[in-house]
Amino acid sequence: MELKNTYNHKFIDGGVCAARGFKASGMYCGIKENPTKKNDICLVVSDKICNAAAVYTQNKVKGAPILVTKKNLEKTGGKAIAVIANSKNANTCNADGEEKAYRMCGLAADVLGIKPEEVIVASTGVIGQILPIEPVERAVKPLADSLSYTGNEAAATAIMTTDTVKKEVAVEFTASGKTCRLGGMAKGSGMIHPNMATTLNFITTDCAVSTEMLQKALSEVVKITYNCLSVDGDTSTNDMVCVMANGMAENAEIIAENEDYTAFRNALYEVMMNMTRMLAKDGEGATKLLECTVSGADNLDTAITVAKSVICSPLFKCAMFGSDANWGRILCAVGYADAEFDINKVNVSLSSAAGTIDVCKNGAGIDFSEEIAKTILSEDEIGINVSIGNGEISATAWGCDLTYDYVKINGDYRS
Amino acid sequence: MELKNTYNHKFIDGGVCAARGFKASGMYCGIKENPTKKNDICLVVSDKICNAAAVYTQNKVKGAPILVTKKNLEKTGGKAIAVIANSKNANTCNADGEEKAYRMCGLAADVLGIKPEEVIVASTGVIGQILPIEPVERAVKPLADSLSYTGNEAAATAIMTTDTVKKEVAVEFTASGKTCRLGGMAKGSGMIHPNMATTLNFITTDCAVSTEMLQKALSEVVKITYNCLSVDGDTSTNDMVCVMANGMAENAEIIAENEDYTAFRNALYEVMMNMTRMLAKDGEGATKLLECTVSGADNLDTAITVAKSVICSPLFKCAMFGSDANWGRILCAVGYADAEFDINKVNVSLSSAAGTIDVCKNGAGIDFSEEIAKTILSEDEIGINVSIGNGEISATAWGCDLTYDYVKINGDYRS
Repeated sequence: MELKNTYNHKFIDGGVCAARGFKASGMYCGIKENPTKKNDICLVVSDKICNAAAVYTQNKVKGAPILVTKKNLEKTGGKAIAVIANSKNANTCNADGEEKAYRMCGLAADVLGIKPEEVIVASTGVIGQILPIEPVERAVKPLADSLSYTGNEAAATAIMTTDTVKKEVAVEFTASGKTCRLGGMAKGSGMIHPNMATTLNFITTDCAVSTEMLQKALSEVVKITYNCLSVDGDTSTNDMVCVMANGMAENAEIIAENEDYTAFRNALYEVMMNMTRMLAKDGEGATKLLECTVSGADNLDTAITVAKSVICSPLFKCAMFGSDANWGRILCAVGYADAEFDINKVNVSLSSAAGTIDVCKNGAGIDFSEEIAKTILSEDEIGINVSIGNGEISATAWGCDLTYDYVKINGDYRS
Repeated sequence: MELKNTYNHKFIDGGVCAARGFKASGMYCGIKENPTKKNDICLVVSDKICNAAAVYTQNKVKGAPILVTKKNLEKTGGKAIAVIANSKNANTCNADGEEKAYRMCGLAADVLGIKPEEVIVASTGVIGQILPIEPVERAVKPLADSLSYTGNEAAATAIMTTDTVKKEVAVEFTASGKTCRLGGMAKGSGMIHPNMATTLNFITTDCAVSTEMLQKALSEVVKITYNCLSVDGDTSTNDMVCVMANGMAENAEIIAENEDYTAFRNALYEVMMNMTRMLAKDGEGATKLLECTVSGADNLDTAITVAKSVICSPLFKCAMFGSDANWGRILCAVGYADAEFDINKVNVSLSSAAGTIDVCKNGAGIDFSEEIAKTILSEDEIGINVSIGNGEISATAWGCDLTYDYVKINGDYRS
């Protein structure tokens, strides 16, 4: 899909290896028997120790890897060198979950010659099945041996579950006169809903940024990107975004909210926003990316809440699948959003590569050509533009249509 | 479907005409051209003026009939004589919506010889299309002429939209030594979600109850019945439940929370709880009724919140469609419910007419027979029993599975 360019960045290749000093590898180790031998485990390793920050699922049920990663980052005071991640098993709701997650850190640390607490661990897949550790034990050596500065794709495919495409984005930007790079990989297709919306995301940068500023930028950006994404309203147990910064661009370390911080934050936004769009477009069973932009709000939370409410409505999502300009369902979802505004000032238009059409003014329907609307909605990226006439602030939320294939994929996921 | 009998009531026939002194009628008037000439408008009329109470959708977008009914009941101080309701058009988000809703009240009042404000008006169907008033004008006379004490079925079919079956329940109970009757009709299939969960519900009783006690009982019962129902997470713009009590059973009027109040409230619960189950089972595209009971809570709101969270999870709903005992998705939904409890004390079992099976203890998976689980989940009424080990309070929420047919029905609803 075409990337959106908000801050006029240069997009580059390389995903999680785009930044200097980051190697990656991925392979099939057989977490679950799979005749296609699709990659199911990966390593990402920095040549230098990194400042690291992460945000985690807000589900009370937290995958064991989430708990272990959190403890590791606390122990190191926000430092990390490597990521080990697997798909096909979430290692969640198992009595031995933490033990296995620590074991994965230990195995990676041994083979890389680093400390176990310098490893970020993540798992994604079925909940509540015991993670077989033998495949991981067998895999760490070949994984370490095959680490390379171009291993990003092998790693990105290893974290896919029901994803149909791998998700990688990277950009270049400048901080204190030095060219920096920031890139990442993501996985996610179902069980995606704020907060945290994303399942697994790993972002690397060679920009020098303090752990504190890293965490600040991540929290700021996640609020308006991943947390504005919903595929199906289910908040996963294993969601995590982490950012690792190894400083190899040799810029002056960013330790305050200055111009360099803004450049870094904008690069992070560009990558995470585009990753969000990729996740939405590849939502389970999806045929269409839906982007709902709410403008005219008097505060950001209102704009986000209303945009999310539209994106989450199953009835609206079905209408989009059918390319049906059923704007009443949009207004209905706007109406039940938990926010204060005057419904009688709400305007709605629909847009795509094929054009834009107004469908609702001041909270009531207006005449429009159903034929033109159908043409607009037959595209695979649809904009829903809602103005609530209350102020100057806007926000976007991302989602996808609800289709037969969503039901098919999830009616029998485990087998 | 089989009715549940919580308070050992005698179920009776007659729906909205089960109580003495209530007539009803229904017919096809052509709100929307329809070759099958399915009923689309109905009247319910009491021989005596009634005390009346209602609860309405919490959506900011409120159908014009909702606004008009509310004003009418305010004007009369909670008195009503008749209901006029149509399907095929929600009369919502139209510039002339209130005018048309008032006109419907006026038309009904004229033909019945009562005041317009003594009429409760309701509409259900597509949002944002102008309501044609001519079919209503033509219909009121034949509707009034065909009113009868056995017209309940004609009325119940007239409010159906995508419903596949009409929904009627009625019971007998005793207040101050007199036999009373309470019954109702409901419609609803999609766009059903707390609060208010129900689209349209009309309940009649010959019990003498003050308007104040009527409203109190209705609010109490709606919280644990309709507001614990979700088909698809979409809160409709036109939801309304109203209760009309004409006092023709000649019991001493219930004006306080005494024994008679309890008898009345329990009858109301029996009817509304069974109507809720009918609505869930007939959810758009549904093949299964899902009843999630959360026990061991330390307060009612927690029990309700957790039960609703499970019932609303699209992933869980898809798993139930596939008869897949994917309990991880249940625990995941329990985990993201906005309530305080210890996830490590959560137990889950699944039950149906074919038996019961434990699938999760203390927040972790346990060994169970997938074969037995599949047999249990292949029934069409499934119980999901979640104990959160925190107290003595329990609550139930109702929903249905998410199927291909939900997508089919809603992918092209308007045409």
